[in-house]
Amino acid sequence: MTEKKELNITRRAALVGMAGAAGTVLARSAAGQDVQVSGSNRPVAPDDSTKVLGSRWSSDLGQRSPYEALKRVPSGTLSSSETPLQDLHGTITPADLHFERHHAGVPFIDPEKHKLVIHGMVRRPMTFSVSDLKRFPAVSRICFLECSGNLYHDAPEQTTAQLLAGMTSQSEWTGVMVSTLMREVGVSPKSSWFLAEGADAAVLARSIPKQFWDEAMIVYAQNGEAVRPENGYPIRLLNPGCEGNSCVKWLRRMEFSDSPFMTREETSKYTEPVIGEVARQFSLVMDARSIITYPSYPDTIEKGWIEIQGIAWSGRGKITAAEVSTDDGRSWQQAVLQEPVFSKAHARFRHLFNWDGKDTVIMSRAIDESGYVQPNRAEWIAARGPGSGPYHRNPITGWRLMAGGNVVYRVEEWG
Amino acid sequence: MTEKKELNITRRAALVGMAGAAGTVLARSAAGQDVQVSGSNRPVAPDDSTKVLGSRWSSDLGQRSPYEALKRVPSGTLSSSETPLQDLHGTITPADLHFERHHAGVPFIDPEKHKLVIHGMVRRPMTFSVSDLKRFPAVSRICFLECSGNLYHDAPEQTTAQLLAGMTSQSEWTGVMVSTLMREVGVSPKSSWFLAEGADAAVLARSIPKQFWDEAMIVYAQNGEAVRPENGYPIRLLNPGCEGNSCVKWLRRMEFSDSPFMTREETSKYTEPVIGEVARQFSLVMDARSIITYPSYPDTIEKGWIEIQGIAWSGRGKITAAEVSTDDGRSWQQAVLQEPVFSKAHARFRHLFNWDGKDTVIMSRAIDESGYVQPNRAEWIAARGPGSGPYHRNPITGWRLMAGGNVVYRVEEWG
Repeated sequence: MTEKKELNITRRAALVGMAGAAGTVLARSAAGQDVQVSGSNRPVAPDDSTKVLGSRWSSDLGQRSPYEALKRVPSGTLSSSETPLQDLHGTITPADLHFERHHAGVPFIDPEKHKLVIHGMVRRPMTFSVSDLKRFPAVSRICFLECSGNLYHDAPEQTTAQLLAGMTSQSEWTGVMVSTLMREVGVSPKSSWFLAEGADAAVLARSIPKQFWDEAMIVYAQNGEAVRPENGYPIRLLNPGCEGNSCVKWLRRMEFSDSPFMTREETSKYTEPVIGEVARQFSLVMDARSIITYPSYPDTIEKGWIEIQGIAWSGRGKITAAEVSTDDGRSWQQAVLQEPVFSKAHARFRHLFNWDGKDTVIMSRAIDESGYVQPNRAEWIAARGPGSGPYHRNPITGWRLMAGGNVVYRVEEWG
Repeated sequence: MTEKKELNITRRAALVGMAGAAGTVLARSAAGQDVQVSGSNRPVAPDDSTKVLGSRWSSDLGQRSPYEALKRVPSGTLSSSETPLQDLHGTITPADLHFERHHAGVPFIDPEKHKLVIHGMVRRPMTFSVSDLKRFPAVSRICFLECSGNLYHDAPEQTTAQLLAGMTSQSEWTGVMVSTLMREVGVSPKSSWFLAEGADAAVLARSIPKQFWDEAMIVYAQNGEAVRPENGYPIRLLNPGCEGNSCVKWLRRMEFSDSPFMTREETSKYTEPVIGEVARQFSLVMDARSIITYPSYPDTIEKGWIEIQGIAWSGRGKITAAEVSTDDGRSWQQAVLQEPVFSKAHARFRHLFNWDGKDTVIMSRAIDESGYVQPNRAEWIAARGPGSGPYHRNPITGWRLMAGGNVVYRVEEWG
């Protein structure tokens, strides 16, 4: 897999020869470390690492190997970036590779000054500092977070898993349950919605109905450390299983009410037309989904045994099965799910496949504990209508294994 | 908690006043980002973040907030560094904050050239590239990794959790089971030990007895990404629950045998004298342990309800209970364990305590599924002998809550 990665190293011609090895130069990695690189810009490691002392000693912050160049792919508008699903192993997404989506950039917030106001249909409107929130009983949970627009729907053959569906990531989130704060402020039993409002320049706001309150959290930590700025530093709402924009970042206000607030982001956006000239509104739950991450474009493979790998997830609960087809959807086999499988979390699946070297299409589908089966594109369109979108498109996607070993995205027309 | 962190920002006096806010200057953070800082070097965020566009847009790699300055603490010899346990939430350790320990620095290894040789009492000696290993069925597992010397045993009052016991960290590791490779090479049924040898300049090598083979893995990924250089890039052995040095990093050779190899690191080192003028050798299993991470030095606290937090772990399996004493060990209450609790993994525990503001000592002890109860220091010394060490010291440790709110390490004489 390392062959494909581009190393972010600038050749410094002035230093040619200083490394003492023919054809090598010294260059500075993105992390500021001097490394030898060959004429091809590939770092040159010692021939025998047991014969020289280490190139690094202990440090206050670790750095990746210069041979690893994991990168998100920022969008042209710089309002989003995607996780390199094809390069990751297991289920945790490193925090600096978590996908991002923001509507007015990432605000710069001082955690000592940030406040969360909770008011509306409550007995005691209150203001909480971040330190206040950290004093409440804490809870951690591993779950996915996905943008509801997570599909490159007219993708060409040369599309990576990252570009196709890289707006889903997974973290261990830590924070306080919304229900804990609800007891603190005394939410009225007549209340059935709350508004969550962010402190960014878009003042992004969403109405969250009661059905999601039991699991909702206000989180201040992600994979052990403080939530990253692009993920809502210092605090964000987390509605496990719900679309990312409902998990309002830079959370500054929650207002309880008995009706939704009809904000811009649930009327103009994040609402989708469906069959019958109506629109789905407050369609917060992310439907079950899966994607094969290996092999995928631009991998090249060889005839013989291949461990097909991917991730499956559902906003409705646990994944109960991930199925793989190696014959373009004609037959399906159950893949092995990596234990433990968490509710509303990416589960890694693996399936051994003996490729005969002939042209075929591999694909996966997720099945969750509600019985929901991830649809193919035709089924999705039949259910939602050809004009529905761009949100909550979760069709089965495939990769074409070409005789010769190239792997490309299996292109499908949308509609 | 943010108050205590030191920001790694250098004041650039030449730019005083450019930020347009009285008393602020522009400075460059460690991550290369220009931020405003006040005269006290604290970054200055906009008064109202909804009135200005974000300070960052989407990027290929995220960066921490300049208000967060998580750091390992490197040892004087630069052969180790410790995880900031007191600053972390949940159970995952960010990869760049994982503790490190190496005996000749961190080798610089090209993953395309690295090879693992498996030989000795096997039918088919074989050499595996890293790519070869990635083609085998993969497994992920969340577990702790701890240095057997993880105790600052003569610590003064001004000791953080990081310095006291920060040589334990937790990751989601992904790789191939050793048992899978054993089938591949055809290990002799008469074999009962294997040597694991690293490719660093110390050529660190350990003998691993059969009892650990079922769970042993050769891992290439840590929290989703490639194993970090200081943690064994490109591959390391992982013996869940066993002392860190047995999880040989930069693994290049495994030799199967019917007896241990008596390497330097299991004769001169990592063997400890115990009562009766004998030594414990191959004492690989990490005994159950716990530490309170909040409140701890240098926190200051106030009278009233406090959520005591910490982590408990055991090399023998699951933690079944973490108990907390708030009266210097006279009585113990069961803390709440954060679910899910994994085998051989850090489990976070939490306990609500209503502090009356008077001088007292808080402490925790771990109990694991084998029935083992973490001992206090006197019990540990009675069992192992006063001269035992410096390895596998896992006594109960405490924090003194002082009238006024200061928290310091509860100093205990060793022996």
